[in-house]
Amino acid sequence: MASEALQELIAGMRAGGPDFSGDLSRARDEFEALLATMPVDAGFSFNDVQLGGVAALHCKTGPARAGALLYLHGGAFVSGSAQGYRGLAANVGQAAGLPTYALDYRLAPEHPFPAAIDDALTAYRALLSSGMKADRIVIAGDSAGGGLALSLLVKLREEGLEMPAAAYLLSPWADLSCSGGSMQSKAQADPALTEKGLHIAAGQYLAGTPVGDPLASPAHADLSGLPPLLVQVGSAEILLDDAVMVASRAGAAGTHVQLEIWPDMPHVWQSFAFMLDEGRAALDAAGAFMRNHTSGASHA
Amino acid sequence: MASEALQELIAGMRAGGPDFSGDLSRARDEFEALLATMPVDAGFSFNDVQLGGVAALHCKTGPARAGALLYLHGGAFVSGSAQGYRGLAANVGQAAGLPTYALDYRLAPEHPFPAAIDDALTAYRALLSSGMKADRIVIAGDSAGGGLALSLLVKLREEGLEMPAAAYLLSPWADLSCSGGSMQSKAQADPALTEKGLHIAAGQYLAGTPVGDPLASPAHADLSGLPPLLVQVGSAEILLDDAVMVASRAGAAGTHVQLEIWPDMPHVWQSFAFMLDEGRAALDAAGAFMRNHTSGASHA
Repeated sequence: MASEALQELIAGMRAGGPDFSGDLSRARDEFEALLATMPVDAGFSFNDVQLGGVAALHCKTGPARAGALLYLHGGAFVSGSAQGYRGLAANVGQAAGLPTYALDYRLAPEHPFPAAIDDALTAYRALLSSGMKADRIVIAGDSAGGGLALSLLVKLREEGLEMPAAAYLLSPWADLSCSGGSMQSKAQADPALTEKGLHIAAGQYLAGTPVGDPLASPAHADLSGLPPLLVQVGSAEILLDDAVMVASRAGAAGTHVQLEIWPDMPHVWQSFAFMLDEGRAALDAAGAFMRNHTSGASHA
Repeated sequence: MASEALQELIAGMRAGGPDFSGDLSRARDEFEALLATMPVDAGFSFNDVQLGGVAALHCKTGPARAGALLYLHGGAFVSGSAQGYRGLAANVGQAAGLPTYALDYRLAPEHPFPAAIDDALTAYRALLSSGMKADRIVIAGDSAGGGLALSLLVKLREEGLEMPAAAYLLSPWADLSCSGGSMQSKAQADPALTEKGLHIAAGQYLAGTPVGDPLASPAHADLSGLPPLLVQVGSAEILLDDAVMVASRAGAAGTHVQLEIWPDMPHVWQSFAFMLDEGRAALDAAGAFMRNHTSGASHA
């Protein structure tokens, strides 16, 4: 039985968001306007910074431990911004108890694959260069940003860089071929996303790169040697099987995985923690996971 | 890089346990002798009780909250006992902070399917009849006992009984057809179990019941309407895909699921918490889960 808050949220989602199959500039503006309606804790503060030349929003949420949370926002690789996602990024950072950097990585189609991964890598290198210890860094991201976070981890392994302490993936989009059975089985239940919409965005991001490229669709990458992963997904998502695939393949490859499937939750319901108990509860669980995996680490 | 404790454990497992393809009575005795070598906390106490006429071992581990943990031991449905598994059961109960009852359900081949489920159902009814609130009860079990715990939940839903607060499945064997790809992909890595051994035990337990019967292989059952499930499995297990299947199917059906895949861990490594850090850590994580899901409940 869905709570009133959940019913309200789902109705709002079904009423429709911006149409990314039409004029992209207008759709981006509409999406930012929608994000701007979401309340942000008045005690948080934000300021523009650069991480290796990539723009980021530094989120201060109160007392924080040494280290950093690098946050990669959603928006299907073609929209969204650090500013628009600052509330979610800051809530995740507060849950982790870490200073937070929401990254404005470059978007497609102007900057297709692998621009976003390059920017995330640059930002991570900049954190290390500033003297921060890798074992005090957590990577997090939602939707396309969750897939991007996973791609970043694979890239870090390939580059031989030191791994962060943990990663937290919220409803990650990690299989751009949309091959999961939940694309069909959850099509009616999902109030937020459509397979058609994902295919359009994937085409703009890939711009000719094969959809099975392991850095573009990291669900299909070698997922060994990664830090502990927390994956949260709702049961009302066409991306449910992306989360299951990431968890099962990473776990089988010897990566520590915690997969949480939350009943009836829609895509990135943690964004609605301001109105939804399950959003707060999921962030609390993630906070425990992120703190647990940074608590024994060095202080930098 | 496996710790010395893990290397020692895996070597011990590879040295071989009892042979259940030969004389069952001897194999059971050998298995009990092996279990008897495992240290049990000297502060715990145990006494024989009955739950609706089914024998059980009541485990006292220290200060406990109101409620009960019903523990269903492993042993492939043909071996094991509450006495042999009292250390693990008590450790799980201590982690949950609940009085614990390790059940001596009837074993195959003398008592094939569904005798074990009937006994578990009888014991659960007896707890309710004693005045205990369902939302203060947790069901837990390892290996065959993990599958049995899941079968019990399905049975409770079918019978219209009130659900327990949560369930904790340790390396559950929930697909008696052994259809998971990990039966092959993890055959070399798994130091404890073989597919052949599982097929022999399944045949004795099923005694003609189709292997796809949803109460015999609950991974294939309707898993909707169940209480929150924690599933822990190691990456060095042929049963890895049983855990993934249970989690993904239960989650898709709207049951709250937390799946943890622990790198390099063998079958039911929590049994070796007395020597293995990861065993203690997994029990701690399970304790947090079980306490979380019983903390808001009524006090009976």
